Amino acid sequence: MSKDLFGELKSLDEARSLLEAHFPGAAPSLEVEGVPLLKAGGRVLAQDVSAPRDVPGFRRSTVDGYAVRAGDTAGASEGLPAYLKRVGSVAMGEVPNLSLSAGEAAGVATGGMLPEGADAVVMFEYTDSPLSDELEVVRPVTQEENVIGADEDVARGQIVFTSGTYLRPSHVGVLSAMGFSEVPVWSRLRAVVFSSGDEVVPPGEIPLPGQIADMNGPTLTASLSGDGVEVQYAGILPDSAEAITAATREGLGAADLALISGGSSVGLRDVTGKVIDSLGPPGVLFHGVAMSPGKPTIAGKSVGSGAVFGLPGHPVSAQVVYTVLLRDLVHRLQGRGRVLPRPVVGAILVRSLAGPSGRTEYVRVRLKTEGQRILAEPILGKSGLLSTLALADGLVELTDARRGMDAGQRVEVILLDN
Amino acid sequence: MSKDLFGELKSLDEARSLLEAHFPGAAPSLEVEGVPLLKAGGRVLAQDVSAPRDVPGFRRSTVDGYAVRAGDTAGASEGLPAYLKRVGSVAMGEVPNLSLSAGEAAGVATGGMLPEGADAVVMFEYTDSPLSDELEVVRPVTQEENVIGADEDVARGQIVFTSGTYLRPSHVGVLSAMGFSEVPVWSRLRAVVFSSGDEVVPPGEIPLPGQIADMNGPTLTASLSGDGVEVQYAGILPDSAEAITAATREGLGAADLALISGGSSVGLRDVTGKVIDSLGPPGVLFHGVAMSPGKPTIAGKSVGSGAVFGLPGHPVSAQVVYTVLLRDLVHRLQGRGRVLPRPVVGAILVRSLAGPSGRTEYVRVRLKTEGQRILAEPILGKSGLLSTLALADGLVELTDARRGMDAGQRVEVILLDN
Repeated sequence: MSKDLFGELKSLDEARSLLEAHFPGAAPSLEVEGVPLLKAGGRVLAQDVSAPRDVPGFRRSTVDGYAVRAGDTAGASEGLPAYLKRVGSVAMGEVPNLSLSAGEAAGVATGGMLPEGADAVVMFEYTDSPLSDELEVVRPVTQEENVIGADEDVARGQIVFTSGTYLRPSHVGVLSAMGFSEVPVWSRLRAVVFSSGDEVVPPGEIPLPGQIADMNGPTLTASLSGDGVEVQYAGILPDSAEAITAATREGLGAADLALISGGSSVGLRDVTGKVIDSLGPPGVLFHGVAMSPGKPTIAGKSVGSGAVFGLPGHPVSAQVVYTVLLRDLVHRLQGRGRVLPRPVVGAILVRSLAGPSGRTEYVRVRLKTEGQRILAEPILGKSGLLSTLALADGLVELTDARRGMDAGQRVEVILLDN
Repeated sequence: MSKDLFGELKSLDEARSLLEAHFPGAAPSLEVEGVPLLKAGGRVLAQDVSAPRDVPGFRRSTVDGYAVRAGDTAGASEGLPAYLKRVGSVAMGEVPNLSLSAGEAAGVATGGMLPEGADAVVMFEYTDSPLSDELEVVRPVTQEENVIGADEDVARGQIVFTSGTYLRPSHVGVLSAMGFSEVPVWSRLRAVVFSSGDEVVPPGEIPLPGQIADMNGPTLTASLSGDGVEVQYAGILPDSAEAITAATREGLGAADLALISGGSSVGLRDVTGKVIDSLGPPGVLFHGVAMSPGKPTIAGKSVGSGAVFGLPGHPVSAQVVYTVLLRDLVHRLQGRGRVLPRPVVGAILVRSLAGPSGRTEYVRVRLKTEGQRILAEPILGKSGLLSTLALADGLVELTDARRGMDAGQRVEVILLDN
């Protein structure tokens, strides 16, 4: 038991900058692997992807209507329609078995191939056909109107998505349309999660009097899994520097990221720093962050480029540190090249919050809907109380610049969900 | 090819209400299954969960300090400390091998078990020990101060989470602490995705001239997978009512939700309605929604309670309809009992948008960060253009009440990501 003797605390921004500087991109161990297209959602492209062929690959109508020669519709109006001869229609998915001569028109649906001789499509709405072989056109079209050229959408060889693209459903769709059935993505980031504390037993084991089942380890494991990380929960560390060093070294042999969350273990705080330094330079990057909860967070980098974190033992801390500090790092280590702003839920604060003192404070809130209004209710109660831990839907950030917040004020809630 | 002859369009709110009324909760086919705790994140509880034992199960300190009898500290102050006799300290994770008599104190760390005779804990910061066996206490504590009772956190038998709870990482942690190593969740929702259109070929197949590879099917498959649905991509439907009916019936035999997205297939629109009605009452719930894109959306319910959707063929539509109409339904069918408000990204619109006419319009935007500001740039260009499809990060909603939006205005962007 030692007094709370951190060195100089880093601000949250400083801590983030240090992590960015030391872990700027994909973890070095990641490999390029091919995954089936339909499993590629949520993965990260490991190579630039260029189109293997022109798309659509043929001149295609963008509307339901009639393929024509644009010149034949010049000056057409409601009062003075252009009269064309209907010469059939294009079957979808086939090369048209007809070609257009001057004065002729052929039906074509959206996505259909233009017949030879045609250079535009008149929308169905601007036509009438009082006789079966005659077409009235009441608006002129210009050349290439309502037509996509064979390579206009994507030209063969064009880079469509760059390495580092996080694949959303629409990316999967576009890759399908370009002809891919397999996609080169980064292999999954691998993490190992340890807990510590002489009083902590792994989930499922029945605790003896004086013991409790691990909470932080399963929480962090679920957070990482939700972010697409391949995570190994490695159980409870013994309370000795040698054993922790050995376990961490072994864990990092098969992982890119190791999280050690402290139980109430005496002195673990100091041990984690020594463990990290013993893994080789650069060692400890920061030890103590001006945030609450989460102050005792320690971060380091091993000689093998693995990231190691010592997280505070308090269960709320693990949750908050993961959300505001670790998740962005995880995304970078996964190879994601572009980070979207974090979405928030706007809500009305139902209770005033005191301002933080010199650090960034996160207050857990539960969201409630009341008619059209969304309310954010700060979660109170004894801080260690298990039963309040899962009540929180999100966090309200109090920075030093903000001197507290008043009940009734609008706040932005960062969701904890992943 | 028929003129655009929808019946009366439902408003988006009406469409949502119909879906809520007909699909109020978990899909009937879902079963309760046990999953290992560490795989339970993102799943939905299928039963109320009650605590199998008291938590923490013993009287526990919430701080680092000294276990005392509160009465011995009455009136203690900096000027006049209470002097107690140190009688050792509690080892973490063990039943203390000492008990306290009047005038005694024993060291205890956060989470440690209180020795018999103790009824409060004095924080370390409010003590000093100039001599090894003597403790100065400079603040009084009241009975039970800094102590959690054996069943104070969770009492045995107390329902901690109710059926329908979507399990976030913190739920997983709390379930671990309560002693669970397996959790009863709903089996995964099952969906089947069909595409249609004579010109459409499945991903990976090389399209002939006039053909294109399917885009909607893979997009919807990825969307559903991202939401935790077990989804089967069933390829391209033939363009006949009989074949579509047979395939849909077969698909719904092994799924709770069937999505059929139209290619440019002539008449599919009408066929889908007939197919849905042929699956038995109640049949078609709505056909046409006052939204753009997405107007031709058709929804139905089969006699077996399966949900069937016909989605427009335009690739942007599938994306938008899934995000604003289908996702909430999917969450309900998964058994989720509580829906959180959708988070958004606040951004500055960089280009004015015309108001919608009598329907809810969704404009796709790409987000850009410029210094501290987040900009939302509407995506323009030919609407079918493949290469623009994956550019969109999110949607800006224009309701009828909003008469367009001006450049420079702050907008809320619904992210498309899942």
